[in-house]
Amino acid sequence: MNEKKTSFVSDYEEGAHHTIISNLNRTNLLKTAGYGHDEFSEAARKKIRETCSAPDAEIFFMVDVTQANSVVISAVLKTYEGVIASESSHINVREAGSIEATGHKILTLPHVDGKILASDVKLFVEEFYANELHEHKPAPGMVYISQPTEYGTLYTLEELRKLSTVCREKNLALYVDGARLAYALAYPKNNVTLKNLSELADVFSIGGTKCGAFFGEAVVMRKNLIPHFTKIIRQRGALLAKGRILGVQFYTLFTDELYKKIGRRAIDTADKIRDEIKKQGFELYVDSPTNLIFVTMTETQARKLSEHIAFRTWEKLPPDKVVIRLVTSWATKDNEVDVLLNELRRLKFV
Amino acid sequence: MNEKKTSFVSDYEEGAHHTIISNLNRTNLLKTAGYGHDEFSEAARKKIRETCSAPDAEIFFMVDVTQANSVVISAVLKTYEGVIASESSHINVREAGSIEATGHKILTLPHVDGKILASDVKLFVEEFYANELHEHKPAPGMVYISQPTEYGTLYTLEELRKLSTVCREKNLALYVDGARLAYALAYPKNNVTLKNLSELADVFSIGGTKCGAFFGEAVVMRKNLIPHFTKIIRQRGALLAKGRILGVQFYTLFTDELYKKIGRRAIDTADKIRDEIKKQGFELYVDSPTNLIFVTMTETQARKLSEHIAFRTWEKLPPDKVVIRLVTSWATKDNEVDVLLNELRRLKFV
Amino acid sequence: MNEKKTSFVSDYEEGAHHTIISNLNRTNLLKTAGYGHDEFSEAARKKIRETCSAPDAEIFFMVDVTQANSVVISAVLKTYEGVIASESSHINVREAGSIEATGHKILTLPHVDGKILASDVKLFVEEFYANELHEHKPAPGMVYISQPTEYGTLYTLEELRKLSTVCREKNLALYVDGARLAYALAYPKNNVTLKNLSELADVFSIGGTKCGAFFGEAVVMRKNLIPHFTKIIRQRGALLAKGRILGVQFYTLFTDELYKKIGRRAIDTADKIRDEIKKQGFELYVDSPTNLIFVTMTETQARKLSEHIAFRTWEKLPPDKVVIRLVTSWATKDNEVDVLLNELRRLKFV
Amino acid sequence: MNEKKTSFVSDYEEGAHHTIISNLNRTNLLKTAGYGHDEFSEAARKKIRETCSAPDAEIFFMVDVTQANSVVISAVLKTYEGVIASESSHINVREAGSIEATGHKILTLPHVDGKILASDVKLFVEEFYANELHEHKPAPGMVYISQPTEYGTLYTLEELRKLSTVCREKNLALYVDGARLAYALAYPKNNVTLKNLSELADVFSIGGTKCGAFFGEAVVMRKNLIPHFTKIIRQRGALLAKGRILGVQFYTLFTDELYKKIGRRAIDTADKIRDEIKKQGFELYVDSPTNLIFVTMTETQARKLSEHIAFRTWEKLPPDKVVIRLVTSWATKDNEVDVLLNELRRLKFV
Repeated sequence: MNEKKTSFVSDYEEGAHHTIISNLNRTNLLKTAGYGHDEFSEAARKKIRETCSAPDAEIFFMVDVTQANSVVISAVLKTYEGVIASESSHINVREAGSIEATGHKILTLPHVDGKILASDVKLFVEEFYANELHEHKPAPGMVYISQPTEYGTLYTLEELRKLSTVCREKNLALYVDGARLAYALAYPKNNVTLKNLSELADVFSIGGTKCGAFFGEAVVMRKNLIPHFTKIIRQRGALLAKGRILGVQFYTLFTDELYKKIGRRAIDTADKIRDEIKKQGFELYVDSPTNLIFVTMTETQARKLSEHIAFRTWEKLPPDKVVIRLVTSWATKDNEVDVLLNELRRLKFV
Repeated sequence: MNEKKTSFVSDYEEGAHHTIISNLNRTNLLKTAGYGHDEFSEAARKKIRETCSAPDAEIFFMVDVTQANSVVISAVLKTYEGVIASESSHINVREAGSIEATGHKILTLPHVDGKILASDVKLFVEEFYANELHEHKPAPGMVYISQPTEYGTLYTLEELRKLSTVCREKNLALYVDGARLAYALAYPKNNVTLKNLSELADVFSIGGTKCGAFFGEAVVMRKNLIPHFTKIIRQRGALLAKGRILGVQFYTLFTDELYKKIGRRAIDTADKIRDEIKKQGFELYVDSPTNLIFVTMTETQARKLSEHIAFRTWEKLPPDKVVIRLVTSWATKDNEVDVLLNELRRLKFV
Repeated sequence: MNEKKTSFVSDYEEGAHHTIISNLNRTNLLKTAGYGHDEFSEAARKKIRETCSAPDAEIFFMVDVTQANSVVISAVLKTYEGVIASESSHINVREAGSIEATGHKILTLPHVDGKILASDVKLFVEEFYANELHEHKPAPGMVYISQPTEYGTLYTLEELRKLSTVCREKNLALYVDGARLAYALAYPKNNVTLKNLSELADVFSIGGTKCGAFFGEAVVMRKNLIPHFTKIIRQRGALLAKGRILGVQFYTLFTDELYKKIGRRAIDTADKIRDEIKKQGFELYVDSPTNLIFVTMTETQARKLSEHIAFRTWEKLPPDKVVIRLVTSWATKDNEVDVLLNELRRLKFV
Repeated sequence: MNEKKTSFVSDYEEGAHHTIISNLNRTNLLKTAGYGHDEFSEAARKKIRETCSAPDAEIFFMVDVTQANSVVISAVLKTYEGVIASESSHINVREAGSIEATGHKILTLPHVDGKILASDVKLFVEEFYANELHEHKPAPGMVYISQPTEYGTLYTLEELRKLSTVCREKNLALYVDGARLAYALAYPKNNVTLKNLSELADVFSIGGTKCGAFFGEAVVMRKNLIPHFTKIIRQRGALLAKGRILGVQFYTLFTDELYKKIGRRAIDTADKIRDEIKKQGFELYVDSPTNLIFVTMTETQARKLSEHIAFRTWEKLPPDKVVIRLVTSWATKDNEVDVLLNELRRLKFV
């Protein structure tokens, strides 16, 4: 029962930012067209286009991260193509085989702290076409990355540029999964803006579910990337009848910079926790600057910590260590952080 | 622009019943587990099991009607099976080919006011297996019906029993799509209860989207019908991360009989409209007792009506007539009905 | 047991033309590259291009009719598209749902003796886009016809031209399934040549299985219609490792006009049978000029005939008649025809 | 141009054993039922059942290896399941993503000379179910191995027993791809018989394509493993219309032990080549006892060898070595071996 423990399990444990609830309430009985043809969705699209400085971008709203990933990826790829992604990528390890369920192989690359290298993508594609047997292998058609990554790390603008350049040279679409994008944008040293993403990626998502909305992912794509995309979304059961609910949420997130502000709290609390972790002599497994914290400790310490704190055990490091993951969010409360810090301090005596 | 017209286009034009918003607000910052493992979803399942007198039923929440239909149908059918459904069924004409997109053929039967007959199902299956070439055809594996149907009509308990009996004799799963189920349950002469559905169908859905929720369909299925169904839902991108939002909504709908009460308003306003239609001498194309009203009028009349009323043109009846569809909902306001009645009265002078 | 009866069940009941066996034997121990990269396949492609006067056509060999149909159709269609076809089409009624298994809906049109009309295609597409709800329906992406049709009838050049024109106007690919094409080409009054097919269709098949080969369908498509098509064929398990066997067969069929000559025998024997049928006062259900003969008779007569002749019962015509199908082929023997004619003569006394 | 070189590229470079051609010729004009319902197919099934001492086994014939693998695997797996296989397995690296194209993920394990270990399978399954997040991952549903493996190595009876035991304990189907099975059966020290395979695997294939037939794989499965499997094969376009051609071929291969005898020649010639390789001081990259030979040499030597011999370069071993693959077959001629041995002898001076 997580209820009694203070939880740092994930960033989808609370509902939505109060402004979202209030706006849903205010607009509730207005009648609108369905399936995203309402004025709230249109207004949200306008706001997002402005924030991205991407007047021609096409914007679609979907409900869920896995849904958005599999609908976008399968719509972009041709039948005979696979998607290049990190071995640690969400689509490879957390989405129940949803990409393969649409008929496509994930072509995995090794990663560095969750990131793949432009040079590895280049090499993969060149070796693929150099192979006399490539007719017997799915062709690379797209590169999938996430920003922040599943390890909470960030691509720099320089790294993203290189990836984008390789993708264009090699005729691959570049997709950036921004399920936790608010936490990237809120990191003070982050230098990848929404404008950069609009220019360097062919399609990217702006996560709502983990960043203050009840749910929802906004997919931003360059014009004409996928003809009839609304029909494809519909066919996959992913077109919300009351699209207005997505519209109102994203309109709210992109009004008065709420999306970025929301991310800030998660970073601040994560920084506080990271400081204490270092102070107590624990090792950060990955040096991530966002809201995901990976700490190495002994199994005994992890067991002790789990008495009052809920979290995920990420990996075992034999013989006796483990990596645990702690997650903050837009809604993390001060007293939750206090409880965690106290428990961390106690662990040194274990 | 529908905004300026009084709209009877559909039953998903407003947001959610105010109690739902209030409950989402009250529970908003409580932390819960994700993906439907939260206590609100569990409480909602308990409420639904009780209301259905189906203590062993398994209950899953999905977001969207098309999503629920395609995930359930493709999970029940074997690779080589198709689903029997009316030519007029939602899955055949409104879901963008979502069933075929999962690899299954829809085996269509003719309908009577949206309903298929048990005897037609029986004949279809018997002729199928009598055909020496049936190895070259997909086998019937399931029967899909909707209650109310796409024409707003209702299966009687007798009709449902016959269908259920044929399905069990012929080893077909029976699925009832209840996207608008509240409007069936609210019809005073309806004699098919949730208990009946639990007993006679293998799986059925209880619609939230069109019946007072922001969104959501509760899928009620007999125990062990589909092993690992949660993983299947996840694989299809249909497992809401914050499952609590579905839990809170269905908990609310099944507390104090809100689901049934909500349906009642739609029936009452629809009855009022039907009365006026008859009084004005128009013909009801289908004699439906629920919230969908199909009226035959001349094209000229329909054009005139459309100046102030938004609705769907359902069908053309050459040379010069059309069938229009008017829809009421849980949220239809008195003044909207008044505007419509006035416009209907004016039509006789057209 | 068909062995003891004289069979007119289908045109795939024998093996292959003796020249094919002899050529397979002659080339048997020569070593060649696999997967269609051998010199026999290349020579066959050259022969077919020449015969079609289509120097730029791309030619692929597949093993089976259903395989060729589903691989071609699913490779041409986009995710959100369906294929327009006659209700009576092979893909709709005889291929076990293979098109739907690839994710696509068949958009059926009524037929006249197995043929669909250009005007019906035009109307379908125009009504589709005129429908305000077309976002909720799969878009038409291709037209599938067969030549000869499943009723043995033939499109005239005029009819094919009209279909082709509508397809190009409406941006639909046109696919002609030529599983029995030899029997069309052999019909003296047929005016649709291979050159016409190359020009008017985007892709068509030349059937080997039913026309003198052990197996095999040659798919002829306009250049660049489907990039990486070989990989797609491979992915579907449809790329024969020893592609040479397809190459040798089609090389043989397209040397010395064997393909056309082979068809001739089937037409001649079918004509003889049709003459006797008329002479005996039976009604031809469809007036087909090729190797498929559809005769109407009483159930009693059909039962009597089935004592010594094997054939398919195609359809029941209540109260007491049936349509039977008799099929001749490149390999039909004179004595088989004699037995059949004798039996037909006896039927009048039944 | 491989034609001018002596080729050891693969075991599908020639046609078929002369007895097969002769039997196809002898039966050519007999009329039979289609789609595998002919007496030759039935006789072949009987022969195979007898040879396997598996009177209850169900036997299906398919045309191609990739086809057989993808049709069998996708028919056995449930929607939410993946297949465990070696990273080096044919389905993972040579079949163009055909397994993923049917919607299933390949769950890869490391290999030892192409073989996976029972203990690794056990560990994988146990860790899978121990993972609290397994709802978000495809469940293991089957184990795929090949005998011989892609490296020409063989599972011992002991190893196969262990795999079978783990599979039964963990409720996984065990599938053995026997594309080159003749070469396993012909190896004198092989101790895994067809009877063992019938008992220990749930389904296995007996390869024809690479073992003396024009084409064809016989799939042997325990009774009732896959209901309606013929319809599934049909739906996938994999049911040969003239199934008799598969029947005649397998009948021939399983008459007078031809299948085993055919394999013997490949082993003998491979042994001769391996002897020379060792004698010349080259290293065998994998110590395989069957018809696949993997040799390590310098890039310069490989380039020299390629002047007169055709073969595949399998892998690069930086900085300057490569692994090449040489393949013998049932049809390898003495003079081909002589040419190769001569070239190998010359290489030491390079």
